[in-house]
Amino acid sequence: MAYPGYGAPAAFCPPMFTPPAASDPMWGFFTAVAGQDGEVDAEELQTCLTQSGFSGSYTPFSLDTCRIMISMLDKDYSGKMGFGEFKELFTALNGWKQNFMAFDRDRSGTVERHEMIQAISAMGYQVSPRVLDVMVKRYSRRGRIYFDDYVACCVKLRALTDNFRRRDMMQQGRVTFLYDDFILCTMAV
Amino acid sequence: MAYPGYGAPAAFCPPMFTPPAASDPMWGFFTAVAGQDGEVDAEELQTCLTQSGFSGSYTPFSLDTCRIMISMLDKDYSGKMGFGEFKELFTALNGWKQNFMAFDRDRSGTVERHEMIQAISAMGYQVSPRVLDVMVKRYSRRGRIYFDDYVACCVKLRALTDNFRRRDMMQQGRVTFLYDDFILCTMAV
Repeated sequence: MAYPGYGAPAAFCPPMFTPPAASDPMWGFFTAVAGQDGEVDAEELQTCLTQSGFSGSYTPFSLDTCRIMISMLDKDYSGKMGFGEFKELFTALNGWKQNFMAFDRDRSGTVERHEMIQAISAMGYQVSPRVLDVMVKRYSRRGRIYFDDYVACCVKLRALTDNFRRRDMMQQGRVTFLYDDFILCTMAV
Repeated sequence: MAYPGYGAPAAFCPPMFTPPAASDPMWGFFTAVAGQDGEVDAEELQTCLTQSGFSGSYTPFSLDTCRIMISMLDKDYSGKMGFGEFKELFTALNGWKQNFMAFDRDRSGTVERHEMIQAISAMGYQVSPRVLDVMVKRYSRRGRIYFDDYVACCVKLRALTDNFRRRDMMQQGRVTFLYDDFILCTMAV
């Protein structure tokens, strides 16, 4: 059983979102968001994504979606992101946004279920039709998927896959979990 | 490794929340919420919990919290709840609400981190201090935990524990997951 799909393939990775800053934009942007402690938590991330207009005409990200964005890259479980993770997050977000916009041609702010399934498969995740169906049901509203939910689904799938893969030393698609570790790597996502 | 904690212990289970109906209140309430298809989805649940005033003076539940409430009891992954699950959910919700209110004595709408840790331990979940710390970080805002987040954490912990336990035939606290099944039982929660 394969499970690639760390991030999106090249076709879905356009140039990075350019934050509103001058010379060293990403660093300046990051320090402004992070504040005194030099790290970004979920609430700071939500403010930054909303104020920078990342979602454009789409609904801004909920706090919950920002929390799982943090947890996707938060390998030390601090609940915060450093500069490296911050940049990595924007790269992934740009890919997903571009991907979503490719399907949302009429800019309705939503995509259809079969389009989401197509997008997830195109990212390289090899999950069964049953799992795809469960995912799409979980993240849809009245049969359609909004941008915030689409990104939440992508973030969560990547975070869970990363957590699984890190434990699957032989890359056999099989991991034995102790209860405590299972809760550790799924509760924050 | 033990992991009990299906629901709350007796001390935290007051009489069921009484929905606004006359003779057979829970059934009448359920059918009104479920509508024509006879089942309750996340959006119907959110409307019902908001309109019935379940949260009282606390912030109403977000759609995301309602989605994980459904997934906690949704053994066939339909994304909806029947009458039995609906009643079971209210029993659990009442327990958690009572539990939260016992800590939130000044009715600030929040509890402190150590109180949440105390509450989770009192429910019988045997997880390490590290896992408790990760959970509390994930669900707190500026160091405090709001009612909606508290319930979301309780629902998720119970759902993940149930999913783990169902696969742990010998109750040894150890489960071997295939990737597809791991994603199945964690993505919807």
